[in-house]
Amino acid sequence: MTPTITAFERSPDRGRGLARDFRLRWALEEVGQTYDLRLMSFEALKQPAHRALNPFGQIPTYQDGSVTLFESGAILLHLADQHPGLLPTDPAARARAVAWIFAALATVELPIVDLSMATMLESDKPWAAERRPLLVARIHTRLTDLAQALGPADWLGDAFCVSDLLMITVLRRLQSSALLDDHPSLLAYIARGEARPAFQRAFASQQAVPAPQTPPA
Amino acid sequence: MTPTITAFERSPDRGRGLARDFRLRWALEEVGQTYDLRLMSFEALKQPAHRALNPFGQIPTYQDGSVTLFESGAILLHLADQHPGLLPTDPAARARAVAWIFAALATVELPIVDLSMATMLESDKPWAAERRPLLVARIHTRLTDLAQALGPADWLGDAFCVSDLLMITVLRRLQSSALLDDHPSLLAYIARGEARPAFQRAFASQQAVPAPQTPPA
Repeated sequence: MTPTITAFERSPDRGRGLARDFRLRWALEEVGQTYDLRLMSFEALKQPAHRALNPFGQIPTYQDGSVTLFESGAILLHLADQHPGLLPTDPAARARAVAWIFAALATVELPIVDLSMATMLESDKPWAAERRPLLVARIHTRLTDLAQALGPADWLGDAFCVSDLLMITVLRRLQSSALLDDHPSLLAYIARGEARPAFQRAFASQQAVPAPQTPPA
Repeated sequence: MTPTITAFERSPDRGRGLARDFRLRWALEEVGQTYDLRLMSFEALKQPAHRALNPFGQIPTYQDGSVTLFESGAILLHLADQHPGLLPTDPAARARAVAWIFAALATVELPIVDLSMATMLESDKPWAAERRPLLVARIHTRLTDLAQALGPADWLGDAFCVSDLLMITVLRRLQSSALLDDHPSLLAYIARGEARPAFQRAFASQQAVPAPQTPPA
């Protein structure tokens, strides 16, 4: 059964692929799994019908014949259970890759979300300008640690896997700032991800919203 | 082989079990798995020896005979793979429980971490008092959604599992504030978790740090 994912009807990122549906689109393209897209207005996200899928009223959600899921990290793990190639088969390497999935969300994305929130919700506050350097410094600390862990390798593990996919989507949220300029190895890491054919298909697909395959929201 | 986890040598929470090693201790107690504890100073966390285990210089880490892990969510999933009883066996229920693990960390804990950071790192700033209500409101939004999802049930799924364990450790970070007072069903949820014998064993164990079984850090 073709899975269905939800995404914003009008993405606040204007086609840059920064919303959290993009990580699912990219993973689905990596494994060659077609999917249906249900586009959601901001108002519809907060209604009971959508909260039955995601109690926090967010995108993305994922439904296939057997399961209804929310949280992009959980959906990526589910896809990795369903399709070979997204996580290593060796148990220890797989567990380490799962650690990187959590690190991407809970450790690296957290201060990036904070900067986004400050920009979106607090830019009119009297503290906005003075507080921003604190947030930027917290992000730089994480990026420095991440760059150190990556070292001269192409990917976080022995080969590209869904942990890299997720981490790169997290780092891409910083592309419109200058924060990545101090971390050239991370810029190269992002570029390696973006060069993958599956990334490019997913990117073109989300740029085309509303796409021909899209049913009315 | 007995696994080893790391924890703070001197926990900043003064024995309330709020650091992230506690969720591992509780899970290990739930499955009856003994473990060794390595206590770390703040300085040692930032040294290369520890960064080889956790690139971000944090606790907890986990090592057994086959794997070295960081990120508490990933370690809990690894424990659930190793020991029956921490996650449902039905694949759809298991995937849904994994979604709640990510929700606990990426959606519910995120604004709670923000409030902690504001309290620890920005309480001397001129904006501290005016900004705090914004952070509190973000937490209340998440708690309201969580309480709605929990409804009249005892646990997030059909039976207690590691998702509840993690969510309860996240909510416990708010116990010293008044934020939970508006959410009596979540207070009762926390109390159900704290009543479990495994919770109580883990709590006593972390209060006893440095415990007799603890090797020198």
